[in-house]
Amino acid sequence: MNLTVADVRLTPVLVADPPLLNTQGVHQPYTPRLIVEVVTADGVTGVGETYGDTTYLELARPFAERLEGRRVSDLNALPTLADEVAVDASRVGNAVDVGGLRGVQTAGKLRLSVLSGFEVACLDALGKALGLPVHALLGGKVRDAVEYSAYLFYKWAGHPRGVPAEPDDWGAALDPAGVVEQARRFTERYGFTSFKLKGGVFPPDEEIAAVRALAAAFPGHPLRLDPNGAWSPATSLRVAEELADVLEYLEDPTLGTAGMAEVAARTGVPLATNMCVTTFSEIKEAFTRDAVQIVLSDHHYWGGLRATRQLAAVCRAFGVGVSMHSNTHLGISLAAMTHVAATLPDLHHACDSHYPWQSEDVLTERLAFEGGRVTVSDAPGLGVELDRDRLAVLHRRWLEDDGALRDRDDAAAMRAADPAWRTPPVPRW
Amino acid sequence: MNLTVADVRLTPVLVADPPLLNTQGVHQPYTPRLIVEVVTADGVTGVGETYGDTTYLELARPFAERLEGRRVSDLNALPTLADEVAVDASRVGNAVDVGGLRGVQTAGKLRLSVLSGFEVACLDALGKALGLPVHALLGGKVRDAVEYSAYLFYKWAGHPRGVPAEPDDWGAALDPAGVVEQARRFTERYGFTSFKLKGGVFPPDEEIAAVRALAAAFPGHPLRLDPNGAWSPATSLRVAEELADVLEYLEDPTLGTAGMAEVAARTGVPLATNMCVTTFSEIKEAFTRDAVQIVLSDHHYWGGLRATRQLAAVCRAFGVGVSMHSNTHLGISLAAMTHVAATLPDLHHACDSHYPWQSEDVLTERLAFEGGRVTVSDAPGLGVELDRDRLAVLHRRWLEDDGALRDRDDAAAMRAADPAWRTPPVPRW
Repeated sequence: MNLTVADVRLTPVLVADPPLLNTQGVHQPYTPRLIVEVVTADGVTGVGETYGDTTYLELARPFAERLEGRRVSDLNALPTLADEVAVDASRVGNAVDVGGLRGVQTAGKLRLSVLSGFEVACLDALGKALGLPVHALLGGKVRDAVEYSAYLFYKWAGHPRGVPAEPDDWGAALDPAGVVEQARRFTERYGFTSFKLKGGVFPPDEEIAAVRALAAAFPGHPLRLDPNGAWSPATSLRVAEELADVLEYLEDPTLGTAGMAEVAARTGVPLATNMCVTTFSEIKEAFTRDAVQIVLSDHHYWGGLRATRQLAAVCRAFGVGVSMHSNTHLGISLAAMTHVAATLPDLHHACDSHYPWQSEDVLTERLAFEGGRVTVSDAPGLGVELDRDRLAVLHRRWLEDDGALRDRDDAAAMRAADPAWRTPPVPRW
Repeated sequence: MNLTVADVRLTPVLVADPPLLNTQGVHQPYTPRLIVEVVTADGVTGVGETYGDTTYLELARPFAERLEGRRVSDLNALPTLADEVAVDASRVGNAVDVGGLRGVQTAGKLRLSVLSGFEVACLDALGKALGLPVHALLGGKVRDAVEYSAYLFYKWAGHPRGVPAEPDDWGAALDPAGVVEQARRFTERYGFTSFKLKGGVFPPDEEIAAVRALAAAFPGHPLRLDPNGAWSPATSLRVAEELADVLEYLEDPTLGTAGMAEVAARTGVPLATNMCVTTFSEIKEAFTRDAVQIVLSDHHYWGGLRATRQLAAVCRAFGVGVSMHSNTHLGISLAAMTHVAATLPDLHHACDSHYPWQSEDVLTERLAFEGGRVTVSDAPGLGVELDRDRLAVLHRRWLEDDGALRDRDDAAAMRAADPAWRTPPVPRW
């Protein structure tokens, strides 16, 4: 068995994305992702996936060169390889920041996001080579299926007129009735039983009304609201108070550890985050100040599946809950999320996933939600297979793009509908 | 490949131990250890080692029963198995506590100590089955050899007259000259370049003089002093002040988080611990109060090699250093310590090991220190082989013991020399 990395293939793709609204703007009609393939000397191929914006790509290429000749089992060496890759300082905190939706942007975090795609690909290859599922490489699953929540968005029926885009059949959701209708469809199609609404789009009272409508339509079901830090601490506290009886948690109501700590100290509603605590270096202050009660890990920017398990260990030691954040992603990342989530004993909240919004994928078979759950694969590696034809189609779209879509920019996408749109001030309300 | 556990063998042994002094008393002439063997359905055997006192044995037996039929890769299930094993509450904080040398004694920690022996045995078996060294199962080594420090003890030339014991050739060390002579022998035999003195035995001024003598004999070499919590905060601060220019760190000068925090706040000498922070539940208070600067993990009581990596992750997030504690142990545990230490990127202090003091082992070949380092094995599993004849001899000693030595009791051992000896009050000075 030769576990040496003989070849690495990087394939940037553009994936259809519906017109989902957030406080920064709207999702572009196509969003970039990067597919990573790691091939061992024995010809075993592992696949991974991460953010595909230009800056990530620019780091992924030299990272790939450094990985060749190392073993897919040398996972502890990946951070060192990442450290060796130079980050263009002018890019940090700039284009790839998606208006702050991924939290603080640093060179280290960029590198970890790139690393994560390679780590998952190495784990997939290692699992296939050894005949073990990825969860077994992480110590084994403690559950047979992982629960996800319905990720509700305010959305338009379609992208702005004149903008090339794939149609979707979800219709518009711009008021409480639309949100409830969307939630019903989520339950019918996938069996989800908990709901997260992406907020920060409309004034707080409208979003409070939407959550109230969900609570009335789905009594007793866990509900979450995530305005991506659009509110002041005072507004956050008012929303928390009004929805205290129905919220499982409030996600990133306000930006920054100080603001989150101020809110947390004055409400009994747990605060979750994927913006205030997004790196290990942000943990000490936030946990010392009890600023957050649940950290939503995104294995991409925490640096992979093993780093996610380490984050969970830190959270456990401090009595902080852990669950999973999601950005637009494909089936490879959903499989990776499912494997690592299956190994975490104290995962007490359904994970987030954008996957139902993605009509396109690069797999021969889509992952399925049944009863809101994804079954944990026991096949070697991640248990997914790349569809090379589909990959080629989505890569061709990336090749043919003039650069406008290669870096996700929700504010620019919004300007296609509203040329006067500017990224709102923080706090917006 | 069938990774199912088909058989588990538990072999308690008594191992020769020299008359090493500490604040509680003296090491018994023989100390109990438990050797764990896990055999897969394919006939692959993995070995582990942990504390062997009666209470640990009583937990290991039902744990072993629960492990049979599970896979050696199901490591995340081990805590659940451990939780199912009942702990006799009357034993907690009692006989197996070794006078507090292992820190707080709880049912959870007892279970984790037992678990660790099984976890290491499972990792050894899994590595052998897959053809991978244990370090690769932990993500791969980041160094080829692990550095250890010379573990200096005040000691008698021999155990008290009339007490059955194995002789040792180290001679007595009861004053600064004796300590320096012992250190010289450590460097000659094993190449160690850093030194830890077990203190708390003589009044602080005598131990300060011993450390000063070491500093004079080995200028510039890292030095540590560990009185096992025998001092008041005021005494701790006085010692720290007097030795500030030569100490790498001061280990557990005083007991408890409050006391350690008080000392830490008033000295620039880093404080290390294997008594104040010995479980994940003790971390939050200690780290929030900056009570310790280096946690010395003992993979036995933290719950294994993977838990040790998790501890290291928590420490990293809080800017706390990590290294390794040691109690009397054999080569299996030294191999396990070496594998996990090899995977920790930020291990900046040489690890402790009692191994040079153990003239007996259960391996066909002893592990070697060269230049103070143990080479990390790349053989499948731990890379050690059980010597069944030696195991049988040491087990027979355990069988033939009337019970006096089956539970380590340093105060009882001291009473063989000084019938009036009582466990000293805390703080002793």
